[in-house]
Amino acid sequence: MARILQCVPNFSEGRNKEVIEAIVDEVRKVDEVKLLDYSSDKDHNRTVVTFIGEPERVLEAAFNACKKASELIDMTKHIGEHPRMGATDVIPLIPISDITEEYAIEMSKKLGKRIGEELNIPVYLYEKSASAPHRENLAKIRKGQYEGMAEKLKEEEWAPDFGPNELNIKAGVTAVGARMPLVAFNVNLDTDDLSIAKKISKAVRGSSGGFAYCKALGIEIKERNIVQVSMNMVDYTKTPLYRVFDMIEREANRYGVNVIGSEIIGLVPMNALIDCTNYYLKVEDFDESQILEKRIFE
Amino acid sequence: MARILQCVPNFSEGRNKEVIEAIVDEVRKVDEVKLLDYSSDKDHNRTVVTFIGEPERVLEAAFNACKKASELIDMTKHIGEHPRMGATDVIPLIPISDITEEYAIEMSKKLGKRIGEELNIPVYLYEKSASAPHRENLAKIRKGQYEGMAEKLKEEEWAPDFGPNELNIKAGVTAVGARMPLVAFNVNLDTDDLSIAKKISKAVRGSSGGFAYCKALGIEIKERNIVQVSMNMVDYTKTPLYRVFDMIEREANRYGVNVIGSEIIGLVPMNALIDCTNYYLKVEDFDESQILEKRIFE
Repeated sequence: MARILQCVPNFSEGRNKEVIEAIVDEVRKVDEVKLLDYSSDKDHNRTVVTFIGEPERVLEAAFNACKKASELIDMTKHIGEHPRMGATDVIPLIPISDITEEYAIEMSKKLGKRIGEELNIPVYLYEKSASAPHRENLAKIRKGQYEGMAEKLKEEEWAPDFGPNELNIKAGVTAVGARMPLVAFNVNLDTDDLSIAKKISKAVRGSSGGFAYCKALGIEIKERNIVQVSMNMVDYTKTPLYRVFDMIEREANRYGVNVIGSEIIGLVPMNALIDCTNYYLKVEDFDESQILEKRIFE
Repeated sequence: MARILQCVPNFSEGRNKEVIEAIVDEVRKVDEVKLLDYSSDKDHNRTVVTFIGEPERVLEAAFNACKKASELIDMTKHIGEHPRMGATDVIPLIPISDITEEYAIEMSKKLGKRIGEELNIPVYLYEKSASAPHRENLAKIRKGQYEGMAEKLKEEEWAPDFGPNELNIKAGVTAVGARMPLVAFNVNLDTDDLSIAKKISKAVRGSSGGFAYCKALGIEIKERNIVQVSMNMVDYTKTPLYRVFDMIEREANRYGVNVIGSEIIGLVPMNALIDCTNYYLKVEDFDESQILEKRIFE
């Protein structure tokens, strides 16, 4: 299976199909890269593309798509509801299989440098790749949006990590950074009492004292007459699914409530699941390379 | 990741390196097939080859290796400690990913037919592919070994499934069949009392009334001063690892003993592990295609 890097760039075009296809084609063209999905939102006027593959090839696809976007999208004319600052607004790189967070960070710097130098676009490193704490959060980087970037780039604390200190009028500014894969994980409770789901969510989420890499919200599932702890696990390597699941079960018991099921929404890295097996079966010394499927394309 | 079939043929040559390499080369040569391992035993005078890949290509590799073995191995001169009946003694086909047991059976019949017709070798279908219950067990098919096969093939109940009713003097007889992947799974207990491991093994293994597809043995791990329930899980789709693990934990508690860990030895199909995660996290409606790694080479 070899090393897999995921890339989920966001482009500031969600209406013109020709432009969208031309950008996505740049991903399709690259060998050893697999386009998983792309979806456009007309109100946001924005397209999100998802692809995975061999890390260096993924970088090539990301650069080519970014180059194409810089040629076909004119930010001076862009209108859309979603905050944005560039034709290629943001390029997250996500380590999936057999690569470290550090390696993904290194790749993001390589990509950012190339975009800055070859396309003459100011690039901010964000999230795990950020060069300073105030640059970790994408929303803070993007504050002021495209229209405010010419001024922002002149501020010392907002000097770009790569590329010129001046706005690229047509292509704007791009953020590049490594982040961990996000796992959407929901746990269902056999009660219709929303306050219980809310209390448990508060107990498990990092922002209110719970697990650092867990975001949680209590919601109602009206058609089933139950409530749910709806979560985004933003780094399963540090806050594993099983630990949060067990804690929710404990907290639920306190209210005389049971966990009746869980849901994993969308794509999930294999290791997020294998980690659970190893925990519950108390597996000693398991090596991923023992998984047959991991051997086929190594 | 696409569909994966595994093949683990056994050849009656474990000493002559040139012959062994020539046979293994037939596997190496085939595209979309990955050679995982091959190991020879001089006393047994036998080589076991393990490879996986796209099902039709795996069949091609198996046939070519079998053909090469029929050309280079002369069974009239074979001496070895392991029971054997042919140059290619046995070819197990094992469904690993995105293929059913039924499909693996179908593949085994296709391969057996081709070996019988093109190489003029009598072929018995065994295990899940067996054409009658008395032919399921390989040991029963092989009873009498190469030297007894000329006579055995004449018996009505031992007529071959494919190929001639007469022994192929040089290449002998070959068994082909589908079987499920075997998972070697051990559970460690915090006691040095072997009788407890033996009692628990008896409780969980199919042959003494336990789980149908579990073989179990109580053994001592002297260097750790503990005992172990050592198991072969011969069909994890029907007897899942988590069910046996939970039962062992329950039985152990009865004797005031705890499970301190488990071991998965050698290769394991991803699904045998994912099934455990789905069980313990009570995951509703999970689809394998949600696993990112499964998407890359689909």
